[in-house]
Amino acid sequence: MLPILHLNGWKIANPTVLARMDDQELTNLFTGYGWKPYFVEGDVPEEMHQLMAGTLDTIVKEIRSIQDTARQNNVRKAGDASLPAWPMIVLRSPKGWTGPKVVDGKPIEGTWRAHQVPVADLQSKPEHLKILEDWMRSYRPEELFDKNGKLIPELAELAPKGERRMGANPHANGGLLLRDLVMPDFRDYAVSVPKPGTENAEATRVLGVFLRDVMKLNADSKNFRVFGPDETASNRLDALFEVTDKLWMEPMLPVDEHLSQHGRVLEMLSEHMCQGWLEGYLLTGRHGFFSCYEAFIHIIDSMFNQHAKWLKVTREIEWRRPIASLNYLLTSHVWRQDHNGFTHQDPGFIDHVINKKADIVRVYLPPDANCLLSVGDHCLRSRHYVNVIVAGKQPALQFLDMESAIEHCSTGIGIWEWASTDKGAEPDVVMACAGDVPTLETLAAVDLLRQHFPDIRIRVVNVVDLMTIQPSSEHPHGLPDVDFDSMFTVDKPIIFAYHGYPWLIHRLTYRRHNHDNLHVRGYKEEGTTTTPFDMAVLNDLDRYHLAGDAVDRVPRLQKVGGHFKQFLRNKLVEHKQYIYERGDDLPEIRDWTWPY
Amino acid sequence: MLPILHLNGWKIANPTVLARMDDQELTNLFTGYGWKPYFVEGDVPEEMHQLMAGTLDTIVKEIRSIQDTARQNNVRKAGDASLPAWPMIVLRSPKGWTGPKVVDGKPIEGTWRAHQVPVADLQSKPEHLKILEDWMRSYRPEELFDKNGKLIPELAELAPKGERRMGANPHANGGLLLRDLVMPDFRDYAVSVPKPGTENAEATRVLGVFLRDVMKLNADSKNFRVFGPDETASNRLDALFEVTDKLWMEPMLPVDEHLSQHGRVLEMLSEHMCQGWLEGYLLTGRHGFFSCYEAFIHIIDSMFNQHAKWLKVTREIEWRRPIASLNYLLTSHVWRQDHNGFTHQDPGFIDHVINKKADIVRVYLPPDANCLLSVGDHCLRSRHYVNVIVAGKQPALQFLDMESAIEHCSTGIGIWEWASTDKGAEPDVVMACAGDVPTLETLAAVDLLRQHFPDIRIRVVNVVDLMTIQPSSEHPHGLPDVDFDSMFTVDKPIIFAYHGYPWLIHRLTYRRHNHDNLHVRGYKEEGTTTTPFDMAVLNDLDRYHLAGDAVDRVPRLQKVGGHFKQFLRNKLVEHKQYIYERGDDLPEIRDWTWPY
Repeated sequence: MLPILHLNGWKIANPTVLARMDDQELTNLFTGYGWKPYFVEGDVPEEMHQLMAGTLDTIVKEIRSIQDTARQNNVRKAGDASLPAWPMIVLRSPKGWTGPKVVDGKPIEGTWRAHQVPVADLQSKPEHLKILEDWMRSYRPEELFDKNGKLIPELAELAPKGERRMGANPHANGGLLLRDLVMPDFRDYAVSVPKPGTENAEATRVLGVFLRDVMKLNADSKNFRVFGPDETASNRLDALFEVTDKLWMEPMLPVDEHLSQHGRVLEMLSEHMCQGWLEGYLLTGRHGFFSCYEAFIHIIDSMFNQHAKWLKVTREIEWRRPIASLNYLLTSHVWRQDHNGFTHQDPGFIDHVINKKADIVRVYLPPDANCLLSVGDHCLRSRHYVNVIVAGKQPALQFLDMESAIEHCSTGIGIWEWASTDKGAEPDVVMACAGDVPTLETLAAVDLLRQHFPDIRIRVVNVVDLMTIQPSSEHPHGLPDVDFDSMFTVDKPIIFAYHGYPWLIHRLTYRRHNHDNLHVRGYKEEGTTTTPFDMAVLNDLDRYHLAGDAVDRVPRLQKVGGHFKQFLRNKLVEHKQYIYERGDDLPEIRDWTWPY
Repeated sequence: MLPILHLNGWKIANPTVLARMDDQELTNLFTGYGWKPYFVEGDVPEEMHQLMAGTLDTIVKEIRSIQDTARQNNVRKAGDASLPAWPMIVLRSPKGWTGPKVVDGKPIEGTWRAHQVPVADLQSKPEHLKILEDWMRSYRPEELFDKNGKLIPELAELAPKGERRMGANPHANGGLLLRDLVMPDFRDYAVSVPKPGTENAEATRVLGVFLRDVMKLNADSKNFRVFGPDETASNRLDALFEVTDKLWMEPMLPVDEHLSQHGRVLEMLSEHMCQGWLEGYLLTGRHGFFSCYEAFIHIIDSMFNQHAKWLKVTREIEWRRPIASLNYLLTSHVWRQDHNGFTHQDPGFIDHVINKKADIVRVYLPPDANCLLSVGDHCLRSRHYVNVIVAGKQPALQFLDMESAIEHCSTGIGIWEWASTDKGAEPDVVMACAGDVPTLETLAAVDLLRQHFPDIRIRVVNVVDLMTIQPSSEHPHGLPDVDFDSMFTVDKPIIFAYHGYPWLIHRLTYRRHNHDNLHVRGYKEEGTTTTPFDMAVLNDLDRYHLAGDAVDRVPRLQKVGGHFKQFLRNKLVEHKQYIYERGDDLPEIRDWTWPY
């Protein structure tokens, strides 16, 4: 690659900072960035042409020489600081070069006024029309076209042929180059779940082992990379380092671990860089996976927008082949910021993403490790989507064995029969949940309700694929209304515990028949550095609030629930006192498991 | 200001790029950025202390000397390239310096392992407890504290006193320094609107004249600045340049306009820089105004998040004084991207903003110039909010004279009686709108409906303050349910034309009694480089779709509306043909005004 910094001096309305720096300052800056700048400067077209051609000749030789040396000394040793300085060009030429020099007495060429339309109002100002004509004639069209207005053959032949044409280059239509990843069987990585809700695992750590083998199986194809802002290990995907390293081009020290010039994990504490690298990698026909702290993925909101727009538009262009999906794993999420607190809490990327076209975006909230494996496998095989997966990295209860997880994730939403008590009857209440922590709190609330009201008919619904709750008219994954109605009823209260901002669930379901009975809990921007359970309490998403919400909305419990509501309030007081004294959650909360 | 680049070598899990660059590379880079780097490097505390102290002595003298020279030669002349290079320090010291050297046989000090907790598991590993004890004793507490555990007076006296204490410095509690802006009377800038919907004005250009005078009246106080990514003129606020310039510190050329070293408009084609500058300016007790292309404000989503979180938390801290609000003007908006197209279309910043706490965020969609003046005045006077104002810059119909605009904006929502036909009766349909283009299209739809169904009872409601449509329990600006019900009815169809993504209106109103009858049109991510009216058509927000929506939902029109619906469909065909041939909107659409 040969970067050309084109300094034409101006933006829409202002000079640019770099254009006003002298050559010495620019040399300092770009040498500091690791480049070797060559300057091509002037405003006489013929001279500039020769200067540019000569500079390119010099530079191409230099690039070849660097490449030869690098290929002879394949791996740089620790301590070797001889990073090559690649050439670059600083091209200084006037903005609006060879366009109108002066219009209405004001200089145009070489100023910001050359931006967009240098001479306007042609219909009403004949002197402007004359400027336009002189300008056009300055290109001597009589020498470029024949009598029929056709480009003369000598010039037409200069254009590249076949795949050397810019738009026909397969690297500009990456789907042409795309090869399926060789995938291991994700079932082989399953966590054993003999009974739901009794044992712990770290979901992202399990996924990391799967990703390790995806990396290994595609090592020869060199078409899979993992990206992360210094967080691959923190997000517990470090099994990857058993088979590859982190890419590192700077000098190395003996103390370094898992760094190499050939590493396929790209880490830099810049979400912008990770996103940019990944987009380029996908657009040129490869596959990737980006893990990020949930709150900080907002840094690339605007970049995501443009990529989603690109996917939408190219899907409508017949000759464009689909590319691999852009896969985000958002972890270190809002509910488990035990050390970092309020600044690290923002589950709003989902809200941002689903403003984009339904045929482009997918959002998954796997409740446990086996579901995360199933979803991860699906996303890596998919094409031309943006997939957002939200999953925790902390030890957490596991709910589904692999067979159940596959069924559950394939539908994307389902009744958890083992937790429900309404089989063969209408439920009194539907307890719905999406996300790992909301699922845990919902099940613990169901446990409380069942203990205190043994005859209550509860239906537990878990949502993995968030798009299922939208109407099928709005999203291809949306459940048809009849199915939604049979799952959520048309007249019973629904208590929905959701991972993110609660109003998003209303936004997705406002057309559903039972929407008026839907009551959502989620993150309402309350947080600090506190215990995991207290985060749920601060946002009314905890088991005690959820159980209370059910009592408030089931008519027959409302009448008899007074004592139970008092029990719940007392539990919350006990919780606050305990964490204040101990800095840790009550053992009965921390160690809760599903009762058998 | 003296920047110190502290290179301790590592992040959580990796070396940092800058730390692995040698002093020559760093000198190149930072000289290129315009600084003069001094290096303070080592790992022996006593030597480093002397080195740092000596370097600081040198640097403080150098800063004084630059300041003296600058104050003697107050204004740099065009062509003067002698920008001073300010000193900075590159401090290289080990990460985890003076902490544990080795734990479990692995080096800690001077590696990434020193991040967060360098030695853990103290309860179960006595050898770790010993490491902790040795580490703590290495600071020789017996020399620092007396027998009662109190810090010895010689050390206690080293701390600064009074306002020199970091937390007591008034610049760290900017509200203490905040002075009200001297404000001109915004009524003096009113556009004349003798009759609603008949004359055009450019809303942001009108606001620009008002901002010019805010700038002028506060020139001596030097506490107001305007920020923008190269767009102040493009966004038609260029009246500002009658009283101030754009800040420019690089060399100047004779061709330059409105640049100076003392300009109070900060322009840089980086939304990040504008946001960062503005936040710092507000936090230190000043006032600011940020105008930005609507689509690209998402670039600072994450920075907005942190500022909003800061405002929320400090509002709860008694000794923190409120600071000036962060004011965004989003213009060059989604509906008028005649030249730029799909990449420049994203009205989703509002969705992002309202996830934050209701007592911090405000969103305004003034429909015309007088409303924009009223809203702009209000925002500049407000404290401790984030205000988002969305307004177009193109010539557009004006609806309210200044007196009506003040009434309308003070309530934030209102029935436009001059456009309504339901006075003294129940309406058949409520036509609601928020945003300038949706307001125009709604009124044109009302005109069509009144022409074809003279006896139809239409109520036109315009929303300026978007938060009014939320329940009062959710936002302090929310209309009480009784008022909302009397404005929107409890059982009549509502056709709501909204500036942004339509589901946001559902999200805000799902608790309202008449929500089931609410039908929202807005931007649904369809766009390209096309005519202004065609943008509305692509998203079903145009007058013909809105009029058809009303017919579909008013029972008595459904029965008789067949011919009218066909007329509307034909109009859309005529529109498509016309713009395809002419590249411009039909005159009857482009030049439509409210009929009298």
